Amino acid sequence: MKARVTVTLKTGVLDPQGKAIEGALASLGFDGVSAVRQGKIFDIELAGADEATTRSAIEAMCEKLLANTVIETYHIEAVA
Amino acid sequence: MKARVTVTLKTGVLDPQGKAIEGALASLGFDGVSAVRQGKIFDIELAGADEATTRSAIEAMCEKLLANTVIETYHIEAVA
Repeated sequence: MKARVTVTLKTGVLDPQGKAIEGALASLGFDGVSAVRQGKIFDIELAGADEATTRSAIEAMCEKLLANTVIETYHIEAVA
Repeated sequence: MKARVTVTLKTGVLDPQGKAIEGALASLGFDGVSAVRQGKIFDIELAGADEATTRSAIEAMCEKLLANTVIETYHIEAVA
């Protein structure tokens, strides 16, 4: 199974990297950008055909390693 | 308009960070992980209702700042 995990900062958590990108875009002349927030993706290939089992394995990976659940949320999506 | 830009390494480009995550997952006891590749996302809020114009503005941002098009590809998706 292939899955894409998207990790983003929770709403309300400050995102200095996003703010820096916003500033850089403005200084490059891109107007009208009102907000930029950045996040991470992980494309994971996992053995096992059963989607429920692999999904719960990936959830455990997110909790333990891929996401800092204090400030980040994650979203798991199966990829065809 | 809100858009989500996904930046991933091109196929064939080595991904040491992904390899490190793969190794970390294995050492945490997660078996069956055959590949991990990492990427970035940018959630951009942009003024302007016309989707074609904002999309071409975001394409320019990707070419100039958000993606290194020598080794990375980007994908732009409008978010409701």
